[in-house]
Amino acid sequence: MKIGFIGLGLIGGSMAMALLHFDDAQMFCVDTDAQTRKQALARGVVAQAYEASGDAPIEAADVIVLCLHPEASVRWIGENGARMKPGAVLTDVCGTKRSIAKAAQALPKDVAYIGGHPMAGKEQGGFSNATASLFMGAHYILVPGEKTTRAAQELLTRMAMHMGCKDVICTDAQTHDERIAYTSQMMHVLALAICDQEQLMDSKGFEGGSFRAATRVAALDARLWTELFWENKDALALQVQALTQKLEEYVQLLQGDDREAVYARLQSSAARKEAYNHAQD
Amino acid sequence: MKIGFIGLGLIGGSMAMALLHFDDAQMFCVDTDAQTRKQALARGVVAQAYEASGDAPIEAADVIVLCLHPEASVRWIGENGARMKPGAVLTDVCGTKRSIAKAAQALPKDVAYIGGHPMAGKEQGGFSNATASLFMGAHYILVPGEKTTRAAQELLTRMAMHMGCKDVICTDAQTHDERIAYTSQMMHVLALAICDQEQLMDSKGFEGGSFRAATRVAALDARLWTELFWENKDALALQVQALTQKLEEYVQLLQGDDREAVYARLQSSAARKEAYNHAQD
Repeated sequence: MKIGFIGLGLIGGSMAMALLHFDDAQMFCVDTDAQTRKQALARGVVAQAYEASGDAPIEAADVIVLCLHPEASVRWIGENGARMKPGAVLTDVCGTKRSIAKAAQALPKDVAYIGGHPMAGKEQGGFSNATASLFMGAHYILVPGEKTTRAAQELLTRMAMHMGCKDVICTDAQTHDERIAYTSQMMHVLALAICDQEQLMDSKGFEGGSFRAATRVAALDARLWTELFWENKDALALQVQALTQKLEEYVQLLQGDDREAVYARLQSSAARKEAYNHAQD
Repeated sequence: MKIGFIGLGLIGGSMAMALLHFDDAQMFCVDTDAQTRKQALARGVVAQAYEASGDAPIEAADVIVLCLHPEASVRWIGENGARMKPGAVLTDVCGTKRSIAKAAQALPKDVAYIGGHPMAGKEQGGFSNATASLFMGAHYILVPGEKTTRAAQELLTRMAMHMGCKDVICTDAQTHDERIAYTSQMMHVLALAICDQEQLMDSKGFEGGSFRAATRVAALDARLWTELFWENKDALALQVQALTQKLEEYVQLLQGDDREAVYARLQSSAARKEAYNHAQD
């Protein structure tokens, strides 16, 4: 099996590393960064590395994993999708799934497409931060559609499990984007908003685990996250608004003089998290 | 040196474990939980364990570390502070520092008091979750006051470094409480508010590191955090309100049609976090 990674940054690089010894896979990559290509070859992560998809054996690939930003992924399909061979599988790792799923409809009839979103990342991106253990214990979300074959879904499931993922979650693009607005995109808005506060720098030395955890993702790739937020702006705005309302309830409680009401709220909210912690996925 | 821990939960237990081989310290504890006393003795964490402070050799202690909730700490000083011997040091680990600092003024003239707040914790409390490594790399905040001697401050600094803390930060009670409203208490309100959202349970399987990190502290001890929030309610309400305003700015940006404005905001906020990451403490 020949697997091609288009883009060998944090996610693509980590996937290629994690897929070492997956079946009889031979891997190649396309990456515009010369240093990345050199390192990937030197470390044996891929067998061949190309600067541009035009030079790469897209026609020979059994699987193409698009590890580009969402809009570049859509462009790639338009420019290169027709080169894929009958029976080949195309997947991607975009953090929003509606526009890529729509773009994939233009693929040749006998090319299978299945959307993917591994729920793992790091504050610092790039191949130099890639690691085979990135996906250990993470959910791998699959978004099958009209162009998905059973074989493609089974292959991606096996790949995710080989990478050390905890499980594979299947959903549709619309549901994915709505849920992700809450579980991922809003966490990024929160991290940014916390760091927007004037006292950020003054607080150095006063932070503990909760602050480090909640702000870890704030030093984000602004181009990438603008794309992700923009595609999902309606769902994300709704989520942030809903959270703002909850926060205002806490402000009201704190400005009031009913201490037992604060206690009751904390107890009920903490119990929700306890229940969540103990619930099965 | 005889050190007494009043309360041997997550923090007290971890401190006692981390202070193994600190000078020639002999340690005892007071804890109402029989299982905790039994385990602490069996594991050699302390040499003696008492159910109540009335039974414990408070008079013989060189150092008392109050590891109770804030209001119980204040009560302990009123009930037991006069038993401490001349030259002894009292410290505490309360997450808010004004009321305990005030209570400590009633201590005998020749007992030194210095407030403390190790910036470490875990989602699950109690001695069974205590570990000697809890404070590795954490800040230890010291709050010296009128009753603090140079010897007491030096001793606490040495203890914190022995426990593996990254550094010791000295400040006053007012500043501590203001900064903590932002770095710690607000993170707890946020974690609760995220879990208050209706879709919490539906989102199982869609969460990644950012969600787990931002909500880790939500399953909190409601009694303890009600005390902490209530003592600091004005500062905390101001912080949450300020964050709410920032979040509303993101909602406005997402509801608008100026994508470059979103990019500009993300870039500038991410740059703030980058600068914070690279700044010295």
